[in-house]
Amino acid sequence: MVLVSPRNPLNIGAVARAMANFGFSRLAVGAPYADHWREARSAVGAPELLAAATEFATLAEAVAGSTLVVGTGSLAYRKPEQPVVPLPNLTPLVGRELARNGRVALVFGPEKHGLTREDLSWCHLLVEIPTDARQPSMNLGQAVAVCLYELSVRACPPARSLTAAAEAAAGEVTEANNGLEDQCRATTSGDLDLLAGLVEEVILAADYSPPAMREANRHDLRLLLRRLALARRDTRRVLGLFRRILWRLKRGKKAG
Amino acid sequence: MVLVSPRNPLNIGAVARAMANFGFSRLAVGAPYADHWREARSAVGAPELLAAATEFATLAEAVAGSTLVVGTGSLAYRKPEQPVVPLPNLTPLVGRELARNGRVALVFGPEKHGLTREDLSWCHLLVEIPTDARQPSMNLGQAVAVCLYELSVRACPPARSLTAAAEAAAGEVTEANNGLEDQCRATTSGDLDLLAGLVEEVILAADYSPPAMREANRHDLRLLLRRLALARRDTRRVLGLFRRILWRLKRGKKAG
Repeated sequence: MVLVSPRNPLNIGAVARAMANFGFSRLAVGAPYADHWREARSAVGAPELLAAATEFATLAEAVAGSTLVVGTGSLAYRKPEQPVVPLPNLTPLVGRELARNGRVALVFGPEKHGLTREDLSWCHLLVEIPTDARQPSMNLGQAVAVCLYELSVRACPPARSLTAAAEAAAGEVTEANNGLEDQCRATTSGDLDLLAGLVEEVILAADYSPPAMREANRHDLRLLLRRLALARRDTRRVLGLFRRILWRLKRGKKAG
Repeated sequence: MVLVSPRNPLNIGAVARAMANFGFSRLAVGAPYADHWREARSAVGAPELLAAATEFATLAEAVAGSTLVVGTGSLAYRKPEQPVVPLPNLTPLVGRELARNGRVALVFGPEKHGLTREDLSWCHLLVEIPTDARQPSMNLGQAVAVCLYELSVRACPPARSLTAAAEAAAGEVTEANNGLEDQCRATTSGDLDLLAGLVEEVILAADYSPPAMREANRHDLRLLLRRLALARRDTRRVLGLFRRILWRLKRGKKAG
């Protein structure tokens, strides 16, 4: 579970409570408001997982180790750039990801406006809780409770394994078994960011795109890489290729 | 949805919000704390259904028109006297009840201790949200959100019909079609209370049970009548029988 810039300490407490209710233990917080975050953590009766939560300066860092990043939030005011999955249909996808030792991150945005378009560009897909069109926007603590209930009851392997699988996957892959396993294993968000940075360097080195387009290209590239669903082994190959290209481009420039 | 003695206005607001999110509109409140209830209703942005909610002095009155009363709450500290159904298994039961034009009430107790043993005696069954044994007790607003999500997504006919069916059933049954329909139709909680009162009068008139047992008997009788799952037609017959018995017993006493 990742919370981006949560504001209301009561809501943070409610999120932690729902996680404890449904047996989830790993909470990460991206770009928290320092005061509110401190207040929530020190509240009387706050679940242990709140004290154990990890802080990150950005969402990118918070999800760097995840292989499937699921965004949440109201879709009423924007046209999403990722596939949108209704919550009841999310569980098989999460189950499959866990079965191949992937790590799943469920990301919730700030209470007021939800995840930004930029936040969402780190997400492979968006989950939508089916709500009434007249009152679609849910309270943060309640939305978290509903999502975790659904995942804990219907994700296969069950929720208990969500943490367990994440822990197993957290161990570094030894060089000995990076053959077949790597072929099935998904790429982490951090590796995709690494690849995106490299591709951007290549684009610059090749004078392929005007600097004014840089931000827009970066955004689109982030989305594109997540659509590809690269296996870890493929990502390594592509990384190797682009490193080579970059080296050649730079050498060529110096030479020219 | 029935709330019994809710205390925290924020929680009442959260319950109303979840109802609006999932398309439920009928809220009844039993024995509310006047101040807290007033505060919750007058809150800025409170959903319309809160203003339209009906107040009842007791739970018995709030569920009098319901044919299936479902209680909620932690079962950690007591052995329940009714069947306990995990939330994922509740939806077919609710669906069946709605399909035969029944009216379903979902009852939540006060935040601190939940529904009392007496409250629960008006319930046909209890629903349990599957939670982690280390933190089983849920926040009221979150528990309501989870239950209504499950019912709205999986109850068949869908949630929209929950209100619609209730409205259809609310119309008085005309004398013309009380034959076959009555045979399938379930008995309302109010009719069961009527029958329970009559049976108690008979027990007293027959000197069947010592007055000291009166409260315990009343409780057990309430549970027993809900286990029987009487069709409305059967309830009428039993009511007729007990009225006759009572009349005979009283006449006999006078004569003797």
